[in-house]
Amino acid sequence: MKSFDFIFPTRMRVGADRMQELGVTAREYGTHAFVVLDPFLKGSQTAASILEDLRQNGVEHTVYYDVMPNPRNTMIDEGIVLCRAAKCDVVVVVGGGSAIDTAKAIALVAVHGGTCWEYTERAGETVQRPSTPGLPLIVCPTTAGTGSETTACAVINNPSEVRKCTIINPVIYPTVSIIDPKIMLSVPPLLTALTGIDTFAHSFEAFICSGSNAISDMFALRSMELFAQNIRTAVQNGSDVEARSQLAMSCAMGGAALFNAGVCLPHALGQPLSAFTDAPHGGTLAACLPQVIEWTLPYAQDRFARVAEIMDPMGVQGMTIEQKAYQLPKIMHALYQDLDVHVSFSGYGLKLDDLDAFIELCFTAFRQDIEKHPKPVTRENIREVLEMCM
Amino acid sequence: MKSFDFIFPTRMRVGADRMQELGVTAREYGTHAFVVLDPFLKGSQTAASILEDLRQNGVEHTVYYDVMPNPRNTMIDEGIVLCRAAKCDVVVVVGGGSAIDTAKAIALVAVHGGTCWEYTERAGETVQRPSTPGLPLIVCPTTAGTGSETTACAVINNPSEVRKCTIINPVIYPTVSIIDPKIMLSVPPLLTALTGIDTFAHSFEAFICSGSNAISDMFALRSMELFAQNIRTAVQNGSDVEARSQLAMSCAMGGAALFNAGVCLPHALGQPLSAFTDAPHGGTLAACLPQVIEWTLPYAQDRFARVAEIMDPMGVQGMTIEQKAYQLPKIMHALYQDLDVHVSFSGYGLKLDDLDAFIELCFTAFRQDIEKHPKPVTRENIREVLEMCM
Repeated sequence: MKSFDFIFPTRMRVGADRMQELGVTAREYGTHAFVVLDPFLKGSQTAASILEDLRQNGVEHTVYYDVMPNPRNTMIDEGIVLCRAAKCDVVVVVGGGSAIDTAKAIALVAVHGGTCWEYTERAGETVQRPSTPGLPLIVCPTTAGTGSETTACAVINNPSEVRKCTIINPVIYPTVSIIDPKIMLSVPPLLTALTGIDTFAHSFEAFICSGSNAISDMFALRSMELFAQNIRTAVQNGSDVEARSQLAMSCAMGGAALFNAGVCLPHALGQPLSAFTDAPHGGTLAACLPQVIEWTLPYAQDRFARVAEIMDPMGVQGMTIEQKAYQLPKIMHALYQDLDVHVSFSGYGLKLDDLDAFIELCFTAFRQDIEKHPKPVTRENIREVLEMCM
Repeated sequence: MKSFDFIFPTRMRVGADRMQELGVTAREYGTHAFVVLDPFLKGSQTAASILEDLRQNGVEHTVYYDVMPNPRNTMIDEGIVLCRAAKCDVVVVVGGGSAIDTAKAIALVAVHGGTCWEYTERAGETVQRPSTPGLPLIVCPTTAGTGSETTACAVINNPSEVRKCTIINPVIYPTVSIIDPKIMLSVPPLLTALTGIDTFAHSFEAFICSGSNAISDMFALRSMELFAQNIRTAVQNGSDVEARSQLAMSCAMGGAALFNAGVCLPHALGQPLSAFTDAPHGGTLAACLPQVIEWTLPYAQDRFARVAEIMDPMGVQGMTIEQKAYQLPKIMHALYQDLDVHVSFSGYGLKLDDLDAFIELCFTAFRQDIEKHPKPVTRENIREVLEMCM
């Protein structure tokens, strides 16, 4: 067994209606919360209940709605200023991955100072990596997708540099994550599908990449099982609480796998695509997963075969390891059909003219992911895979 | 999916030769370590290396060898006095479950004051349950058994009251656990077998008990798989590093399962047996597991069947769920034969005259475990099961 480190410090509170514990939980950590709410909650009954719950538990709040997909460094920096000015002592976030990443960066930088971009990993540049925590952070995800509720990563988009980079630091692990499937019931089918594929990608990449280990594999495999067994139901019937619960669990497990093992080529392609086109993260991954598998084979054949068994146990019965592995891209395409997901890099607006700059960004901001891919990757290989994805 | 909380804050460092990082790790947390060493290490090269490593990393040390199986409250209290007197700022432990539990109690009480017994769970009595941590604690297990490296429990024996009770508090979770299979190579076959069965019992009980949840099940199932696949090899060839690694992983996973789900009737019987007879913990569990399964059936049939599939996949092929479940006691007895484990409650010295006091202890100190058993348990039932175990 190979050596590894593992960390998973977030306290999990999982189950239907657990959101009702948000006020009590926040009060354990502070008396003035900086509350990051996903913009879709603006004016909603949910938002009103959250703030009333905080108030009733003796927690003042400063509310912040300025979150957008692929959150921008400049907007996060504005949030940091507000959080410090209000002297908040705890950060609460209710939202999708962009809201959670925004809140993570605010909680960290509000304590340590400067701008959020200084804390992102950028190969060859100076990076702030504090070893003490920021403000306590309570996370309530509203999608089963990013896994940000169980990672110490925050992805930040810097449009002025056309770069998307990531804060990766154990001190930004959420203090508590409250995972309540009921708040996910209204997520529309396509977003359910794309965030679900994001979850799958985390576990899949954690499982095949060179950073995988005995515990991350356990999380990744169970996460993929729960995804395979529940994604179709959740997309077809969004109000199925059980399917939503299982996908939320799949997502949280995927986060633990990804943070401890890492990700590989699909994320190294997907993240730059969002930086260039603002495409949704899950969609960018969906648009390259089958192509990356095809290109990678016969490398990692055993692992791909195992994933094929999880994704389509009946379909691959009796096949050899090799046959199962080569079946996986087809299994993914069939899943996309069922989920009504039809995406491509060109469909998201990437142009062939952008490929050089795109490849450059892959190798600067996402080098750590490329290096973990089970097959060696050159700049020329990336061009080849990108062309398959157009 | 039912609601649950999950916590697993210990930072894990796993792998052969990772013990070499102990000094560096201790230095991250303090400059004067209270070092609890299992007595079997006294005068050993290992002990000398550990202390030299601490010294070279700028960590002074106060060494403490006064550990015994089923650690006594009075001895732990002496350790607490020494730890406070030396103004230690970090606790390090290298040893089996008794040493680890001793160190956990010392790290907690050195900060919070009083005696260790005041912190143990005792139904109906006043219990100290601080919400802030004790001293940072670095744990290096030398057996794959108790799972104490990944729990926030410390079992303490109080001979003057003939009671064994447990500190259960998230704040005593080890800060870091360094899991190095190489330090386990010299564990003799019988101890390997009994500590292995302890590991199995944790995962098994966590899986069948009413406290089980989606994440604890994942840990428990994987832990049982690793146990089933490696225990025979490790007992037959103690120097097999790979088998030792997998069992160490099984043990750490079992700890996470047990702390988050709980245990049930086997632990409620095994712990009092140690209080009455000083029998080794793993042996007490081995001596009642098949009997508890027999007595519990047909309750929890699905779960027992799943365990039977893990323990003897070939042997139960083609059987119904019911048949698999009823096969499990036989599978356990066959395993004991292979491991040369021959234990019983009477063999450990329990007398029929002690049964009333024994049953009383079960219902005071271990009520929380009894209440989690998948079949309701009365005092009369305990007598019945105990008679099966004699």
